[in-house]
Formats: sequence, C-alpha cells, structure tokens
Amino acid sequence: MPESAKTTRDVPASGRLEGSALTEDTSFLLARANALALAAGNAALAEHGLKVRSYAVLALAAEDTRPSQRELAEFLRLDPSQVVALVDELQRRGLVAREADPSDRRANVVVATEAGRALHARAEHAARSVQHRLHAGLSAAQRDQLAELLRQLAFPS
Amino acid sequence: MPESAKTTRDVPASGRLEGSALTEDTSFLLARANALALAAGNAALAEHGLKVRSYAVLALAAEDTRPSQRELAEFLRLDPSQVVALVDELQRRGLVAREADPSDRRANVVVATEAGRALHARAEHAARSVQHRLHAGLSAAQRDQLAELLRQLAFPS
Repeated sequence: MPESAKTTRDVPASGRLEGSALTEDTSFLLARANALALAAGNAALAEHGLKVRSYAVLALAAEDTRPSQRELAEFLRLDPSQVVALVDELQRRGLVAREADPSDRRANVVVATEAGRALHARAEHAARSVQHRLHAGLSAAQRDQLAELLRQLAFPS
Repeated sequence: MPESAKTTRDVPASGRLEGSALTEDTSFLLARANALALAAGNAALAEHGLKVRSYAVLALAAEDTRPSQRELAEFLRLDPSQVVALVDELQRRGLVAREADPSDRRANVVVATEAGRALHARAEHAARSVQHRLHAGLSAAQRDQLAELLRQLAFPS
C-alpha cells in the first residue's frame, strides 16, 4: 500500500486497510471471501424466495440420500435449531416434507417435494450464475485449484 | 460415494452426504471451510479471552492505520453494530481506546493500548498455530496457492 493511502481519508474504506497483516491470514481471507459469497448468493437467490442456507437444505433434500436433520446440521455446520427453522420454513411453503426414517423410528428425514425439486433446479441456475460472476477474475484452472483446496479444508481426512 | 453408503445409517453423518452435488459448489465449500476455521480459531483464542472477530478488531487496532469503526465494519464485513459491540468489549478490558480522528471530528478511530498490543502478540501466535494445524494436509505450495486465490475472492479488483 502506498504511504499516501495511509493518511488519505477519502479512498474507499477497505482500501486503506488492505496492507494489514490480516491479509496474510488465510482464516481472515476465508471469512471475508465467504461473507462476500454469502451476500451475493443471498441476493441472487432472493427471487426464488431462498437464501444460501435454505437453498443448501433444499439441495440436499432434493438428492437421494434422504438426510436427517442431524445430518443436515453436521454437513452444513449449522446449529440443529437453525436447521429445524429452515426445514420448517421450506415445509410451510410445500417444498420439503418430513418423512419417518425406516431405519430409526425416532428420526425424520427431509425430502423435497415435486415443487421443491422444481424450485431447486431454477435456484441452482441462479447459484451457478452468481458463482461464475464471483470467480470471473480466476482462470478455469484456478477455479479447479480453488475448489480442490477448499475441499481439503472443508472435509479434512 | 459407494451405493452401500447411501443406505447405511451408522457411518459418520457428514460422510453419507459427501457425495452431494453441493461439494462441487465453491460457495458451499467456502462456507464449510470457514465454519471449521471459525470454530477452531475461537477455541484457540479462548485462552486469551478473544474470539476470531474480536481478535481481528484488535489486530487492526494494533497497526498504524488507526481505523475508524466504519472502516473496521467494511473491512471485516460485519454490521457496524457488531463492530461497536466488539470495540466496547475490548475497550472495557483496556485493550483498545477510541480516539478522536483529527481528519473528521464526527468520527473516532480505534487504537490498541499497550496491553492490547501485548495481548495481540500472544494471540497472534495462537492464531498462527491453529492455522498451521488446519492446513496440515496442504503442502507449502498449496498453502500459498490457497492464500493467493482467496485473496482474489476476498478483494476482487
């Protein structure tokens, strides 16, 4: 960062701090990149009445795995109470149903309805578009690299 | 994912969903990696009475840029009200002080005290250790790649 930027008040606010040692901290970069992706994702999904988190629950409910609420919470790293609220909202809108889990009578699994699958397909398109836009500065090879590196952090073996 | 895993209830919960199409979604991977880093960071910083967010505010206050609360909020992508609460807490503990901004009489800047700088130095050590542990599965070259790619997402030009 040029010295002049440190004393000039009218440059964009975050610009003045971009020389901070925090920008060497991968956890900080991860948090900031995530905050930007979350904001862009929520904005793009709003036309479908979804946010990033409800979209993720709907996406998992639309697959064949029939996840329990506990599994959704662990996979999405959310509090179980947050998952219950998200499933409640999707269920109220007729997008998912809770069904008894044949392998565990105390548990319910969350399954997308036909309407839920249809909405998910439309929302997935929006989610991909926004991701494409967020990654516009990266080459195809860099995008693949990023996904692979993040996969290792997100699912450490 | 092997077919058998789809019907087996006793594998670890997130394992059963790891074949999900969501794992191709970089924004999801970013969110999950961030959630893991946040949890590990909060745990590691607890012995210093800090969390990832208060640590970040303290780190920026300990530099020479003398950030305003608005700049902190924009840089850390937090609500201004969250930053006010974080600064209040650090100030109550004698770790930062609010000082008048000579270039804008309506604004305050946030500056670490001597005690704040000393705590930051100790906490930075803990933050680096946890990052080292989180990235243990990556080579040095991969860690550099990851930081560079995240920097492009976190600070798009």
